[in-house]
Amino acid sequence: KEKGLKEWVAIKSDSGDHTKWGEVETMLNMAAERIKKMGGKVELADAGTHQLPSGETVLLPPVILAEFAKDPKKATLCIYGHVDVQPAKMEDGWATDPFNLTEIKGNLYGRGATDNKGPVLAWLHAVESYQATKKEIPVNIKLIIEGLEEVGSYGLFKLIKKRRDSFFADVDFIVISDNVWATTTPALTYGTRGSSYFFVEIEGPKLDLHSGVYGGSIQEPMADLIALLGSLLDHTGKIQVVGVSDDVTPLTEDERKLYDNISFDLEEMKNVVGVKHFLQDTKEEVLMARWRYPSLSIHGVEGAFSDPGSKTIIPRKVTGKFSIRQVPNMDPPDVERKVKEHLEQVFSTLNSPNRLKVTATVGAKPWVANLQDSQYVAGQKAVKDVFGVEPEFIREGSTIPIAQTFQEETGKSVMMLPISGHDDGEHSQNEKISRYNYIEGTKLFAAYFYELSLLH
Amino acid sequence: KEKGLKEWVAIKSDSGDHTKWGEVETMLNMAAERIKKMGGKVELADAGTHQLPSGETVLLPPVILAEFAKDPKKATLCIYGHVDVQPAKMEDGWATDPFNLTEIKGNLYGRGATDNKGPVLAWLHAVESYQATKKEIPVNIKLIIEGLEEVGSYGLFKLIKKRRDSFFADVDFIVISDNVWATTTPALTYGTRGSSYFFVEIEGPKLDLHSGVYGGSIQEPMADLIALLGSLLDHTGKIQVVGVSDDVTPLTEDERKLYDNISFDLEEMKNVVGVKHFLQDTKEEVLMARWRYPSLSIHGVEGAFSDPGSKTIIPRKVTGKFSIRQVPNMDPPDVERKVKEHLEQVFSTLNSPNRLKVTATVGAKPWVANLQDSQYVAGQKAVKDVFGVEPEFIREGSTIPIAQTFQEETGKSVMMLPISGHDDGEHSQNEKISRYNYIEGTKLFAAYFYELSLLH
Repeated sequence: KEKGLKEWVAIKSDSGDHTKWGEVETMLNMAAERIKKMGGKVELADAGTHQLPSGETVLLPPVILAEFAKDPKKATLCIYGHVDVQPAKMEDGWATDPFNLTEIKGNLYGRGATDNKGPVLAWLHAVESYQATKKEIPVNIKLIIEGLEEVGSYGLFKLIKKRRDSFFADVDFIVISDNVWATTTPALTYGTRGSSYFFVEIEGPKLDLHSGVYGGSIQEPMADLIALLGSLLDHTGKIQVVGVSDDVTPLTEDERKLYDNISFDLEEMKNVVGVKHFLQDTKEEVLMARWRYPSLSIHGVEGAFSDPGSKTIIPRKVTGKFSIRQVPNMDPPDVERKVKEHLEQVFSTLNSPNRLKVTATVGAKPWVANLQDSQYVAGQKAVKDVFGVEPEFIREGSTIPIAQTFQEETGKSVMMLPISGHDDGEHSQNEKISRYNYIEGTKLFAAYFYELSLLH
Repeated sequence: KEKGLKEWVAIKSDSGDHTKWGEVETMLNMAAERIKKMGGKVELADAGTHQLPSGETVLLPPVILAEFAKDPKKATLCIYGHVDVQPAKMEDGWATDPFNLTEIKGNLYGRGATDNKGPVLAWLHAVESYQATKKEIPVNIKLIIEGLEEVGSYGLFKLIKKRRDSFFADVDFIVISDNVWATTTPALTYGTRGSSYFFVEIEGPKLDLHSGVYGGSIQEPMADLIALLGSLLDHTGKIQVVGVSDDVTPLTEDERKLYDNISFDLEEMKNVVGVKHFLQDTKEEVLMARWRYPSLSIHGVEGAFSDPGSKTIIPRKVTGKFSIRQVPNMDPPDVERKVKEHLEQVFSTLNSPNRLKVTATVGAKPWVANLQDSQYVAGQKAVKDVFGVEPEFIREGSTIPIAQTFQEETGKSVMMLPISGHDDGEHSQNEKISRYNYIEGTKLFAAYFYELSLLH
């Protein structure tokens, strides 16, 4: 099975540089041919154009929309995946050639092995396993495979909207396998956090000033900014913006119980991250802080002195940057309004001659799925069938717009069903998928088709 | 008179790039020859070596130590100046070639015209004016002229110490003309602020973290740093470090009166700087805040995200940078101790798992002269003789180590006697000295020799 993966990993389908999207198209064509050989019907759908920061408009690589033979009595499952990858170079610190899949001690190392070429192939292998044994696939299969996930899925969301009443009309379930387990136990992912990114600009004098000449007479923009940023959090990490956490869904007893089963080792995590303690004391609290509560991180300051060494400048304009991860039922526009009000209120107490400007970019809404949904019931059973254990029900603290977008644009049931290991190093050097996860993951997908069909 | 200045300005004696110190030596030789022709005895004193940041050790250009014929009955005045300049290029926005002295509407434009080639030549012209009229110079003249002022006077302070009991032994007064008037009125400068530069490092996790994955569970170094920086100042600019301002010399009524006479226009200054208001309401308060009270400026943060755009990073290690301008009788080591104690105390309230490290580099001690000193009395009279007005008694808010160093190392009386205009643009594009200031400044120096001799 790793022969197919070796071929796919060898294609340098890094989507980061648009001048190399030819390789992405090569990879999409290779995937399309593979699906056709399996009997699938493939459309290379036009994804439109994209305007680069330079102003240049470029044609986007197509998106694969594929389907296998359809039986109207069966449920229809649409599988999402992507075949582009993050950049990778030996000199970044890879132990093996990132574009030559290499097995070492049961792990298959290579860029895209786990994110997301391996899982896409695992889905195809699951289909093939039915075909090879001449068994009927118990659900109708559709595929949507893109080549620009790593740069933000340009064109994809428009395409989904456009095909809502055609390609997606008969779809019952959408499944995504583009994330990782939280521990060594298989997992079903039922939520992601949303985010808003804030820019707090303070503009003061019309030129940078010398701190010796002017220091003490000027209300410095940097001092105003520090006061504003300092008002956002207390030292326990609690967000101090009034009302911003009001809409957080209360924790139910059923939800709380989900955390008991997660085999997350707090001590090990402290070592991995290199901290003496987290803001919370227990495993459950730490995971909830990462997954089901909002957080605010201050990322940096633009416009101030940031080089090594010393410089005695009073910067004339500084922009603080922070973001808020959001959870159901927080609403990004509402959060934005409250943050702006908060900052304006604090700023008004500073009696500052400087000008405050707050802008925000909204990344994505938070997403959470209903665990009573057929997909989760089927996923849970499939995990038990293949691995003999209960899956962990987990969330992603980071913002992955795809699940929420599918749910919102198509109105269909969406599940994230990872097969990648928590230590697979997606986006890092020495990305890998274990042979175990790759093969058992394929079995999981095959079992999932079956379990899902039983519930339909 | 501007012919000499034209020749000097033509030498590109920018000391910023050590590979071009040959031009600085050319300039020093030209000055030395000039002094010799005037009958002066010149030593090109070895200034030793300097270690560059690269580790390379370089030979320093020499320092001119010169003296004219000595009469033991007269007072001995030692004049300090420098003949190196800041960099200058047409493309920086000069209206004329910076190395071709150009007169426009009574102003002589060129790099070094006012900082400091013009004033150095004005001193020589003042000597020549006595020689030309066959009058005896009423004081003995010594000169110390260096070529590395703009990069920090490498080697100079060691040389001063070394020659304390030889070259400086018979010196009574040291005079420096390397700063500018505060307004359009001639000034005597009697103080400079000292400074200490602080680095507040907070080190947390062993790697940068993704704010989506970890946000909410980590006590972020940036949040700790913001809390620490936010504890340093209140919004009126008052330093909040306990005890740090205790040693500030109380304002006396005599000193307060000095400020009444300064023709500083607060409204004009607001326009120049581009602020709606200063931290203080009156001219006197603003000047005192800049000259005779301490100030704290936050310059920036190293290690956080500082580029344009958005990045969702939790930086693992961040270093905040601020400096404190200090005034008599603040003592930089004492200030450093109090700042460290303050930051450690605040940090202890954060219950942080991160590590705090505070380091400081001390720029220079504050300097203030005694206005009853003969030099100030003579200077005041000389200004009245030449300009027909009382000089403004001013200070520099910035840190100029030279006066304090001379005072401390030689124990002699030191005065700063500027002839440069407040709008001469030293270090900027289109640096100039006005023909008026250049010529009347020469007269001022000649009158100063005379007035000083009367008081001896």
